[in-house]
Amino acid sequence: MLSEFSLIDRFFARRAATARPSIAGSDTLGIGDDCALLAPRSGEMLAISTDMLVEGRHFFADINPEALGHKALAVNLSDLAAMGAQPQAFTLAFSLPKADEAWLAGFSEGLFTLADRYGCELIGGDTTGGPLNLCITVFGSVPPRTALRRDAALPGDDIWISGTLGDARAGLGVQRGEWTANASDAALFRHALERPEPRIALGLALRGIAHAALDVSDGLAGDLLHILERSSVCASVDVDAVPRSAALRRLASDVQQRCTLAGGDDYELCFTAPTAARAAVEAAAHKASVPVTRIGTIRAMDAATDRPAIVWRNAAGAPLTVTLQGFDHFHAE
Amino acid sequence: MLSEFSLIDRFFARRAATARPSIAGSDTLGIGDDCALLAPRSGEMLAISTDMLVEGRHFFADINPEALGHKALAVNLSDLAAMGAQPQAFTLAFSLPKADEAWLAGFSEGLFTLADRYGCELIGGDTTGGPLNLCITVFGSVPPRTALRRDAALPGDDIWISGTLGDARAGLGVQRGEWTANASDAALFRHALERPEPRIALGLALRGIAHAALDVSDGLAGDLLHILERSSVCASVDVDAVPRSAALRRLASDVQQRCTLAGGDDYELCFTAPTAARAAVEAAAHKASVPVTRIGTIRAMDAATDRPAIVWRNAAGAPLTVTLQGFDHFHAE
Repeated sequence: MLSEFSLIDRFFARRAATARPSIAGSDTLGIGDDCALLAPRSGEMLAISTDMLVEGRHFFADINPEALGHKALAVNLSDLAAMGAQPQAFTLAFSLPKADEAWLAGFSEGLFTLADRYGCELIGGDTTGGPLNLCITVFGSVPPRTALRRDAALPGDDIWISGTLGDARAGLGVQRGEWTANASDAALFRHALERPEPRIALGLALRGIAHAALDVSDGLAGDLLHILERSSVCASVDVDAVPRSAALRRLASDVQQRCTLAGGDDYELCFTAPTAARAAVEAAAHKASVPVTRIGTIRAMDAATDRPAIVWRNAAGAPLTVTLQGFDHFHAE
Repeated sequence: MLSEFSLIDRFFARRAATARPSIAGSDTLGIGDDCALLAPRSGEMLAISTDMLVEGRHFFADINPEALGHKALAVNLSDLAAMGAQPQAFTLAFSLPKADEAWLAGFSEGLFTLADRYGCELIGGDTTGGPLNLCITVFGSVPPRTALRRDAALPGDDIWISGTLGDARAGLGVQRGEWTANASDAALFRHALERPEPRIALGLALRGIAHAALDVSDGLAGDLLHILERSSVCASVDVDAVPRSAALRRLASDVQQRCTLAGGDDYELCFTAPTAARAAVEAAAHKASVPVTRIGTIRAMDAATDRPAIVWRNAAGAPLTVTLQGFDHFHAE
């Protein structure tokens, strides 16, 4: 196979930060030294997130390498979006069974096209042989007190969702043969699965407006619970209000519900904001060109049960029993 | 297997930065949110390095998990040492075939024992199922103009090596049955292979004294060449001066030479410094309690050949032909 250094040079180093020293000032250092050197913007902090993607678990072996390059970075940028952070740089470590040049060309194309759109520089990495594994660490910049944390939800807050949920899980189900869809719906689902769009602009626009936020990567039911646990609150969610695409509405209603509530791989933002900020939230969404939908309310914790939980309701407000047990998504452990 | 969250909680989150908020100020955020938040020390930059370790390539499947936890972090801290950076934090992403609790207990013990020694906080991570793969990204703090870069070697500089080289490769050879050693030598070699000690104190002490530096991870011959290429210089190295342990001296002389020059996994510092700084280098080494040895000299690039290269000489100054071709080390691609 190509040696490590020729591999790095050929597909990655040339497009990395060393080639574009203007981005981060003269002291910044990218690929080619023991460490990269990076500073957040003046007065800001670095938001840091790391994700590891494994073949057969997070993507299929036959995934288009260009789509994989996109997705590997997109899921990391999504974490920055959920923090309200401005993307700045990333490192890429990966192991590959063999150095397939066409594959690497496609992968790096998908990766850098997305990185360039967000001004996110490759500043370091590591490559080795081994079963296909991608580990990206992203760095964003955020003013210390405006970061959108998970522990900031307050009783009375509205709960919002960007975009629609469930399409990626619907796409996985089509690929697995769990259900069928017409060709154009199947293509839309597959696009959602392979091409998630990080909600960076929305995250930035929600600084100072939203209270808590996270990105929905493992399904709404589980992810919203992280906000509740960290904020010590409960939630009431209108199941019928959870936004879904027209394509998803053509699947059976129980499949729709499971895809939207326990689907995973959505990479939409779930956030809370005070009711007084509804107009501001709508304005932020308009600015970011992303639709947002109110799906419920944060409640004070019930003293009797004393644990964070979601009460699911229908549009009429009647409580529902939502059974999501055993509906594994792509990330299932 | 244990779910991702119980796994993280049980072995990692409890010892992570969230549990010790005092380290980095009230705005710092560790495990449990979409991103960690981190700032370098006032006026300093973050030095960032990432390394991926794959079973069968960087370590054997039967490695003691506690040793693996140590080594996975040590090889990353070694990159900070080579930059003259003060360790600050790290992220850990890993894929595991199964959640073996005894293995995780040992691994996390080795990891955190080393992390605690250097005040390096776990601030985030990711865990998933899959073939065993460890990806650590480390963060250190360094004043912008004192970082020890690879591109700063100057003609006339001495070339120095910390500690001794070759023991780790000798240990790999014993494990592979390439050669034999007595029990105590074999134990020393194995210790070198499994328990590299990052030269953090030396890297810090060399700030403002050394010109260029890197850590020797892939063998002196290849790694020194990185300094030469980045600095556009050549080197003359006395092969007999390259420091080696008493145990290594008991192996055949050709094995000694190949282990010291092309061994890999040494994690010693190779650095250059002006001849006028010899006393300062010795003082820094004394302060860091690490022996250092002068092994050669940086030369201006030869206009006739016009490429960075190492001229190997013996103690008498006679040029040697050193054949290292085909001597693969553990990292071989």
